[in-house]
This record gives sequence, C-alpha cells and structure tokens, in this order.
Amino acid sequence: MTYQIFGESHGPAVGVVLDGVPAGLALDMEEISRQMGRRRAKGGLSTSRIEGDLPEILSGVYQGKTTGTPLCAIIANQNTRSQDYAKLAELPRPSHGDYAGSVRYRGCNDPRGGGHFSGRLTAPLVFAGSIARQILRQRRIEIGAHILQIGSVCDKFFDPVEIPAELLQKLQQEAFPVLDETAGEAMKQEIRTAASEGDSVGGIIQCAVAGFPCGVGQPGLDCVESILSRHIFAVPAVKGISFGLGFDFASQKGSQANDPMRMKNGKVVCTQNNNGGITGGITNGMPILFQTVIKPTPSISKPQQTVDLSTMENAELSIKGRHDPCILSRAAVVIESAAALALLEVLSGGSL
Amino acid sequence: MTYQIFGESHGPAVGVVLDGVPAGLALDMEEISRQMGRRRAKGGLSTSRIEGDLPEILSGVYQGKTTGTPLCAIIANQNTRSQDYAKLAELPRPSHGDYAGSVRYRGCNDPRGGGHFSGRLTAPLVFAGSIARQILRQRRIEIGAHILQIGSVCDKFFDPVEIPAELLQKLQQEAFPVLDETAGEAMKQEIRTAASEGDSVGGIIQCAVAGFPCGVGQPGLDCVESILSRHIFAVPAVKGISFGLGFDFASQKGSQANDPMRMKNGKVVCTQNNNGGITGGITNGMPILFQTVIKPTPSISKPQQTVDLSTMENAELSIKGRHDPCILSRAAVVIESAAALALLEVLSGGSL
Amino acid sequence: MTYQIFGESHGPAVGVVLDGVPAGLALDMEEISRQMGRRRAKGGLSTSRIEGDLPEILSGVYQGKTTGTPLCAIIANQNTRSQDYAKLAELPRPSHGDYAGSVRYRGCNDPRGGGHFSGRLTAPLVFAGSIARQILRQRRIEIGAHILQIGSVCDKFFDPVEIPAELLQKLQQEAFPVLDETAGEAMKQEIRTAASEGDSVGGIIQCAVAGFPCGVGQPGLDCVESILSRHIFAVPAVKGISFGLGFDFASQKGSQANDPMRMKNGKVVCTQNNNGGITGGITNGMPILFQTVIKPTPSISKPQQTVDLSTMENAELSIKGRHDPCILSRAAVVIESAAALALLEVLSGGSL
Amino acid sequence: MTYQIFGESHGPAVGVVLDGVPAGLALDMEEISRQMGRRRAKGGLSTSRIEGDLPEILSGVYQGKTTGTPLCAIIANQNTRSQDYAKLAELPRPSHGDYAGSVRYRGCNDPRGGGHFSGRLTAPLVFAGSIARQILRQRRIEIGAHILQIGSVCDKFFDPVEIPAELLQKLQQEAFPVLDETAGEAMKQEIRTAASEGDSVGGIIQCAVAGFPCGVGQPGLDCVESILSRHIFAVPAVKGISFGLGFDFASQKGSQANDPMRMKNGKVVCTQNNNGGITGGITNGMPILFQTVIKPTPSISKPQQTVDLSTMENAELSIKGRHDPCILSRAAVVIESAAALALLEVLSGGSL
Repeated sequence: MTYQIFGESHGPAVGVVLDGVPAGLALDMEEISRQMGRRRAKGGLSTSRIEGDLPEILSGVYQGKTTGTPLCAIIANQNTRSQDYAKLAELPRPSHGDYAGSVRYRGCNDPRGGGHFSGRLTAPLVFAGSIARQILRQRRIEIGAHILQIGSVCDKFFDPVEIPAELLQKLQQEAFPVLDETAGEAMKQEIRTAASEGDSVGGIIQCAVAGFPCGVGQPGLDCVESILSRHIFAVPAVKGISFGLGFDFASQKGSQANDPMRMKNGKVVCTQNNNGGITGGITNGMPILFQTVIKPTPSISKPQQTVDLSTMENAELSIKGRHDPCILSRAAVVIESAAALALLEVLSGGSL
Repeated sequence: MTYQIFGESHGPAVGVVLDGVPAGLALDMEEISRQMGRRRAKGGLSTSRIEGDLPEILSGVYQGKTTGTPLCAIIANQNTRSQDYAKLAELPRPSHGDYAGSVRYRGCNDPRGGGHFSGRLTAPLVFAGSIARQILRQRRIEIGAHILQIGSVCDKFFDPVEIPAELLQKLQQEAFPVLDETAGEAMKQEIRTAASEGDSVGGIIQCAVAGFPCGVGQPGLDCVESILSRHIFAVPAVKGISFGLGFDFASQKGSQANDPMRMKNGKVVCTQNNNGGITGGITNGMPILFQTVIKPTPSISKPQQTVDLSTMENAELSIKGRHDPCILSRAAVVIESAAALALLEVLSGGSL
Repeated sequence: MTYQIFGESHGPAVGVVLDGVPAGLALDMEEISRQMGRRRAKGGLSTSRIEGDLPEILSGVYQGKTTGTPLCAIIANQNTRSQDYAKLAELPRPSHGDYAGSVRYRGCNDPRGGGHFSGRLTAPLVFAGSIARQILRQRRIEIGAHILQIGSVCDKFFDPVEIPAELLQKLQQEAFPVLDETAGEAMKQEIRTAASEGDSVGGIIQCAVAGFPCGVGQPGLDCVESILSRHIFAVPAVKGISFGLGFDFASQKGSQANDPMRMKNGKVVCTQNNNGGITGGITNGMPILFQTVIKPTPSISKPQQTVDLSTMENAELSIKGRHDPCILSRAAVVIESAAALALLEVLSGGSL
Repeated sequence: MTYQIFGESHGPAVGVVLDGVPAGLALDMEEISRQMGRRRAKGGLSTSRIEGDLPEILSGVYQGKTTGTPLCAIIANQNTRSQDYAKLAELPRPSHGDYAGSVRYRGCNDPRGGGHFSGRLTAPLVFAGSIARQILRQRRIEIGAHILQIGSVCDKFFDPVEIPAELLQKLQQEAFPVLDETAGEAMKQEIRTAASEGDSVGGIIQCAVAGFPCGVGQPGLDCVESILSRHIFAVPAVKGISFGLGFDFASQKGSQANDPMRMKNGKVVCTQNNNGGITGGITNGMPILFQTVIKPTPSISKPQQTVDLSTMENAELSIKGRHDPCILSRAAVVIESAAALALLEVLSGGSL
C-alpha cells in the first residue's frame, strides 16, 4: 500500500490517495474519526484553530468496504484566516520551509498558512495511517507512542522487552500520552511557560510496535530501519530517529549492548532489547522501539530576524495568528500513523 | 544513479551494479583506491584480516571512461577463514543479523563470515560512493566526517555555519579523523581498553556536506532527511541518525532553536544552523550536517548467552577469529559514501 | 512527473494526482478544456450520456500557476443512471473487466457503470495528459493522432519521415481525425451500421510525435518502447502496440527494413523511418510513430452469453443503456495524453 | 523479484543481479543450462560464433540453494573478434542502436560488438528467466512459444482456449519451435535464401502461458499488459506486441470479438479467447496469449548507406563478421524468459 498526499493549508482541500488497499476491508469510520481527533488541536495547550477534519471519501469504498482500487479522501479546508499569513511570502519564518521552498519552487508555491509545508498535511496522513493500522490490527500488530521528553522533563521509557498491546491501546486513548503522570504534569507546565513567553518547545516521542512478526525485512536500502526512518522523516518537524538504545550505544561496550538470547516457552527471545527489535535490518521478534525528536514549533510570536525576499534586505518578523506552543501531544498519533504506513511497506516486501 | 550490492563474505566475490552513471566520466581509480583503503582494517586498532579489495570492473567503463550503461565491479573474496565461523549457523551471535536472518531466509542464507550481513559488503558500497563523490565534486560538493564520540570521549562538533571543503578533504586523509587530536588519543585508548578486555565499543560519526546547492528536495517521503536516512541505515550497525541539533532540539525553545536569517554578501544565510542545512525537507544553502550512531561491534570474544538453533536450547558462545574492537575509524568513509549516493538521488529528484 | 488516477464511474468523483509538476507553469485552462472536450461523447456517433467534465483543482495551483507540489484535480460524477447497470454485478459483461475484477477484488469492487474499469477514468487521464503536453510544447514537442482503421476501412498512413507539428495540431482540432476525408466518411458509415445492429466496432489509432530530441532513452526495461507501451496499455480497450513498421517487419528483409542514414543540412537523418524514431530503445531524431489497436466496445445491446455469478449458472445478457458503438474518435486524445505522460517520463530519465 | 542486467559484448563479462529471489530454491542448473543452450547460435541457420555461456554464480546461492539475498551471475566473454567491429564506432549500422546510443552516451559507449546493445545481453536475461520459470513452475505455470511467422511463411496459431502445459514443454525442446512442421521447413528455406543473399529476415513469435491464476493484476499502469509489454520491449529487436486477437480486433464487431462466458465443470470459462487471457488489465483464467514482432537482424553483409560520424559525411557500410540471418529460433526462449520475469512481477503485485 502506497500513499500520495496533496493539498495546501489554505487551498480548497487537503487529501490523500491510497493505492494497494486490500479489497473487502470494512472501514471503521468511528476509529478513523477517533484517530483524527487525536491530531486536532486541543484547548489550552495548543492552537485555537478548530479543524473539523471530516474526511470525504471520493473513491475506493463501496457499501462501506474498500474496493481494492485507489482510495481518495479529501478534507476540505475551512476556518482559515489567510490574512494572518499575508506577509509570509515575503518574510520567511526562520526554521520553517518558507525560504527553502521559495527557492525550490521559484517563488510559485502557495505561501498561505505554510501551503504544502503546513502541519495541516498531517491530517490526511493520519487518515491513511488509520487504515493501515486497521490492516495491521487484523494481524494483531499494535502501535502506540508516548511523549518521552518535553523541554527538560523526561517520561519513563517503555520496558523494552515487555510491551503489551493493551498498554499501547491505552496510550492511544489519552490526550497527553505519558507513562508517568507526574512527568506529564511537569511537561504541561513547560508548555504553559513557553506559551506565556510567546515561545515554543520541542520534545521526543517514543513509539513501540507490539506483535510484529519475526524475520521480516532485509539488509540494505530496504531494511526495516530505512523504511521506518524514511516515513518518519516525512512528518514535518522531525529531526532525528533512533532505534532501541539509539545514541546511547555510543558509550556502551559490546558486552553490555549485545542482547543476550534465551529460549522461553519454546521461543527465542532476548533478555534485553537494545536493538529495538531489529537486527541486520530484519525484525527479530522483540518489540520494535524507536525514538524521534520533534523540534520546537518554528512559528513563535517573539520577534525574529529574517530577510525580506521582495527587497533582499534584513527584516524583523513577529508572527501573529494561532500557533501551537508544542505539538508533541498531537504528534504522537502522526508518528504512529507514519510508522503504520511504513510497517505495511515492510510487510509487503516479504517473500513472494 | 541507483546501486545494487550483492555478495557474501566468504562467497566468490562481493560487488555492486551502478545504474544511471553519467557517460564520459574519467574514473579516478587512484582516488577510488584511496577511499577504499580508508575502509580497510588498519593495524592495531582494528581486525588483522587483510583485505586486498582491488575492484575489478566488469562493465560500464571503456577506455577509462564511464559508458553510461550499467557499471558492475566485483571484489574477489580471499584470505577468508571459514572455519572461524563454522558454528555460527547454529549459534547466532547476539545483536548480529544471524538469528533474524535465519528466520527471514528459512535457514538458507550463507552463514560463513556473516554472509550477506557482513561488514565486508561495505567495500562495494565505498566503491560506489567514490564514483558518486567524483560526480558531486564536479559540482563542488564535498563530503567529510569525523568521529564525534567513542565510549565516553567526545570530539568537538563541526562549526555548523562554516565548514570549508578543505577541512572535509583533510579529514578524508586521516586514518582516525577527529577535529581535536587530544580527544582522538583518548578515543584510541578507549578502543585499546575494550580490545584488551575482549570487548568492543560504539560511537558516533558526524558528517558534513559543503557546497550543496540551496532549494533541492521536497516535503514528504522524498525529503532530504528521508533519502539520507534511508541510505545511512543501509550501513550495518547504524542505529540512529539526527540532523543539525538533533535530539538536543527536545530541550530547546523555539526562540533559541530557530535559525535567524540575514543577508550576507547578497546571499540569504542563517547565523546558526540548528536545522543542519535542511528545512521543510529541502536544502536551505547552509552546510548539511548529520550525526549517526554506530553500535559496538557485536562480535566480541567475551562469552555470551545465545541459543543453539539445531537443538533449540540455551547455549554459550565465545567468538574466535579476527574482529574489530571498534569500527568507527573505518566507518567514516562508509557513511560519507552512503551520503554521497543519497545526495545524488536527492539531486536527480530535482525539477525536470 | 508521475500520475495516480482514482475514482469509480458512479462514485462521487474521478480524479488524478500529479506529482513532480514543474513549478511556475501557467496552466492554459482553455486548452485543457478543449482537450477534455475531445474525449467527451459527441452526438450521433457516440453515447448520448453528456459529461460536463469540468475539473476542479484542489491543490498544486496558486494564482493560476503550478506550485510544484502535488496537483490534485477531481471531476464530479453526475448524470449517471446506476439502474442501467444494476444487474452487472451478477452478470459480467463478456470481454469487459467485470468478471476478472470480481475475482481480483473478491466481489468488493464497485460494479456501477464499470466502476474503476470505466472509460470514464480516461477523463482525468486526459486532464493529466493536457498538462504534460503543455510542458512538452515548451520544448516544441507535439503529439497528434489519427484513426488509421475502423472495421474494414483504412486511412492513409503518416508520411513517416515528414510529420510537421502543424499537421498534428490540425488533427487535434478535428472531431473525427483522419488524413483522408473519404476514408473518414466510410468509417463513419461502418460505425452507423454497427450502431443500427446494436453492435460495436474496433479500430486502430496511429500516433506521431514531432520534435522529440535525439538520444533520449536507454536499452532494457526503461527503453522508450517499454515506457510508451506501459502507458498506452493503461488505456482501457487497448490490445496491441507497434512502432514504425510494426508487425509488417515480419515479412521484410533487413535490406528493405533497415533505415538508411544520410547527412541533411548538417544533421544525421534516415531516409525512411521503419523504426518509428527509436533504435536500441533510444530516440534517433526521426518522428516517433506508433500504432495501437482498440477492441470493439464490449458493451453491446445484442444478447450475449454470460454466467450469473450469484447462482453460478449460464445466463444471457442484453445490455441496456447508453454505449458507444465505436470509441476510436474519442480515443485519439486519450492515446495522445497517455503518450505525453510517457514521454515526460522518458525525458526525466535522461542524464543527471 | 527484479533484475538488473549489465555488460558489453566485448567487455570482460555480461551478467545479471536478481533481487528478491525466494530463499531455499534448489537451482536446477541443468535446466538453466538447457534454456541457455536454446538461446545460443546453432549451426547453419545462425551465426557461427560459438558462445560457451557458462554462467558463474557469484552470490545468492549456498550449498546449491538460493539464499534469498541478491544473486549475481556473470558470463565471461570469450571468442570475440573485436576487429570485426573496429569501424562501427564511426560508421553506425542502420537500424541498430549505434547512432542513437552514440548521441545518448556522448560517444562514450563501448562500440565493440554493439557493446551494451548487443544481443549477447540476452544471455543473462535467459539465465534470469530460467530461475523465474522454475519459481513459476512450482505454481504449475508454464510458458512456451513458437515461431508464428518468418518472411511470408506462417505457422498455425495456438488453439487459444486449450493450451496444455505439455505442448509448451514440448516446444521448449525444439531447436526450431513451430506447430506445423511443414511451415517450419518453409521458414528455414526463407532464412537460407536470405542468408545466401547476405540479407536477413524478420518474424513473429507467439507466446502462451498455461496455468496462470485468474484474478491477478489491476487496471492502469500496472495492468498485466503493461507489465508484460514493458518486459518484452526490453528484448532487443522487438517492435510490437499484441494480446489475443491483437490488431485483428480492428476489423471486428463486438458481437464477434467478445468472448462468451460459460460454466464448465463448476468453473467460469470463455468459449473463445480473443482477449488473450486478460480483461480489464487482470487475468481472467484463460491462457495468456501474445504475439511479438522481431525486426530483421540489422547487421547484414549487403552494402548500406550510413554516415561517418568522424567526418559527418555520407558513407557506405559493408558489415563483415558473423551475423544471424534470422534470430527467431533463438528469440523464442528470450521472449519466454522476459515473459517469466514479467509474470513474477505481476504475481508479486497481488494483494498483501
């Protein structure tokens, strides 16, 4: 199953075409709606723009079931305030795609609301991911994520060898998914502080996959890490990904880092899971575990240095409008969705 | 230009086919040989297996120039001691691809020397990367890397806004590329300690690209980060990648993290480069900068817990043979090569 | 530039997403509308279903110019009479995709109006092709087609060595494009006869490309013939394609068939063009020429033998509703469109 | 399973890398050798160049079984007489890839023996196809071909509704595969006549596939006809392909052309097979049937008009050396091989 996302933030609609959806899948629209709701802005901690986000399915579904032919869904844009962004075509926002995009597209891209670079484009991604997750769930594969860090506050890590599907499903129900509620409260405080200063703050999402079969993937360009990372970096604001122990491998000895193998109930298991469920580019039967860092929202109301592309002179920018001080709580479902689409690709690359 | 690597560590040969090489490129075989030499084991600090690694070009080159048709080069395997690995088919090495590969390939993959999972497969990757770098150099694009961390010792970071091509070329000349020689000596001591304990140690490579044009790439699955990460994870032992500030974005405010933009000599520049030269999935004209973590070599001589796949019982493994206590110094050129191949792909995805 | 078509004949809409459109193209909507008009049914000789076919652009265009980001256009379905097709889910039409599709999609595909198999899906194809042709025209590449044969009546062939762009443009203006008007009248008579008998008739389209540069393409799976044929067979009802002399090569000697080469005004030309402008899978500077056969419309009102998939018994089918006795005049623009999309792909595969 | 062919006629070797071969396939090297023997020149009716063509497997096979990792095989070039071709770099052969290739590759491609354009490159294609056929045979899918036409002589057509696997296997045993031996003798006479005149002659191969499952494929760019045609046009000298009734559809009425459907032993069958086993781009359970035209060998000893690329003046060319007057008997196995590789691709595109 492949997906192609389209749309601009303030154009008529954003949407996605899914190709290769299996025929006969009874779409759980309530579940799709629930997943999309997780992505939407929520009061207080995030932007006040209300997005209805009701997807309209244009093709590929008949009598409630997928037909197996390309499925297109669109989400109409509404409640947009283009005037907020009027000057952005000339004054690129630092750390946003505005300037690079303007060079890439010779100044022809739609600047309103970030255009095709907008986080709004993650709405059809979550739609697509919801369908992918429904397919994975039929194989008892579950994906869930929590906020591992915001600012200086860290959550607990997943227990890497024991991640029940139920825990992942529980996290999916939460508006602010963390393993340690106290840490969660402290994170929210960091966000409120940033918001009060007209600033924003970054963070880390940790994502886990339970139930994924052993022995899927291959070495090289289509290894599991390559496919997952390609999909995860497609999410705006992601700047890093690591599997299992990740960057902490650097300070480890092989004798600590290597995951010992044991027989358990007739199955080969590892007694620790530093490799995050992947060795040699192939799944090894342990939970898949990865971390991904999300940079602070570039749109802040504090004044910033930029350039005026119409005059090619230095300029100052103060962004008005509704912007998230922190997108981590909304990002969890987006990361899970991108992972789901990646894992379907991994599964389809299996043997003939 | 795409590449397809083939071969097993103890089979007749490893090799690569390059498709889409531009016609008329006069191959600098001396440079290719030099780059491949960087990958080879070096006395004391790494494995004692001597690899001749002279590539034989079977196609795609005529009278010293590329023909534009597929270029195949092979590197014959020699000086192998398969008996060292005889038991590995039954006793998978922890944290290596042995077990996952055995499930994936139903026990039919070649276990000798790690087979297709062997680090030996990076030899044709460096060959391919050397050609890619020659093409990039024609456009004044240079790639270089240093060892940022080994064990508990850290090197200096690149100055993210000012990375001269000359510095990158100088790093390419060094057997143990670091920015701070004192740190380098301390790293070597960490390696010697690990070696003396029959252990291994991991580390981090920081890689930079100078001269890459602004405005190349796109948002989504083919963004610059996606393409680079896909290629980097194809290198065995890589477990994480981050761009620019990477995981440190998590603890930052937007007002700190955002890269201010200024006019300088008529050009738009950023006064810091936390985004590692990429915003919105597109290059922004600043140096491209990324870090990648490499886990400790899984093959250590210390006894380890594993399972015996022939009896499905717990077992103990003590690996004999020649193994690197640390592959970081050899990995630099491999990472640079994978990055070169990725960046050619990024460039070819430009406008028609 | 790639395209992804979606939709079902009687669903909410059909459409297409174009990826890789160059930025800054001022869309000639009048020309697009004219090309789409050529595909629509025309009085007397074809089905009486009136299709408005006004495409709505959802993304990728801003202020009349392409943005360079994915362009989605949809065409709402209207004026459909689903009851005409009500029994088709159970009674597959001979030589249509109904039965094979029902097996492929496990009975879940939308049967109304042929669903995703409908000729209606060629509307977004012509939309996509119109944009491709606009890009090609900037490089002075022109594509045109005429009806070479319908039933027993044959048109003249193109002069294979001399095909002016003006001739191709003139053919594009005609509702029933032929080189020999007398043959055209006889063809129309064949169609009327078939229509009066409740039958249909097939034919051949000959398509030419003027102005395509020499030396583009490559041998193997991405040769020019491979790419063109792949795109042409994506058009429903196409059952064959041949280049230049095509199947008549079988009865020729090399000494007749080989195209002699001569210098002409400082350029290398062939004095005949049996190869249809392609040798070794690469364009040779002569006009590209191919023929493609289109089978008779499967939907006829004469009674036919089929099976009832609900009872798995033999059955008889008499198709009611509005159906074309011959689609050749409407197919010309569809073939040209598919060729345009293929040729853009050929061009993009050129050197870095 | 994908394949990548490399090599030049007079370089060190030609070869192929197969990716995605299922693990554990016990290679039937005798069968591979037999298939490759069918492609080699045979006394009297074809070129006197003797090709040993023993493939050397460099990777992907261990202890006689495929490992599942990329399989590379090379065939060393020998017995070449490069002097025969010495002038070809300057004097392109009419209807060969010489001139277009020289423009495409800026004069850098290897001209000796046609270089990468040589029919010699079909040796690794047959090797790859032999493995594909072994995989297909495990699913009881058999592919066979006969010479349908050479010059003015035609063979019988396959009975389109009844093609036993045994017939296809029998044709594979024959040096000159035809259904009607009398036609075969007359064809050989056409070839001898052409040879005696220093000329060559073209022809048509008809290829059939028995046992292919119903309901595989899809409409659009990846329809069965698109995938097959893409692979078949990758074979040098192919200039057309048609499915089932092919170009004869043009003169037919729908009432004749449509394939009536009936129940037979509980299965849906067609009582005729004008669609060649494919409707709506999807297999319909009937035998897959296609015809492909092969132009006369361009290399003839009769003098021909060409141009001298070193002086850009008109020139005359008389080709010396060993050349086939007709490649149809050798082409059968090449077409079957390309079809086998295409059909594996079709099968892998099935549902997840």
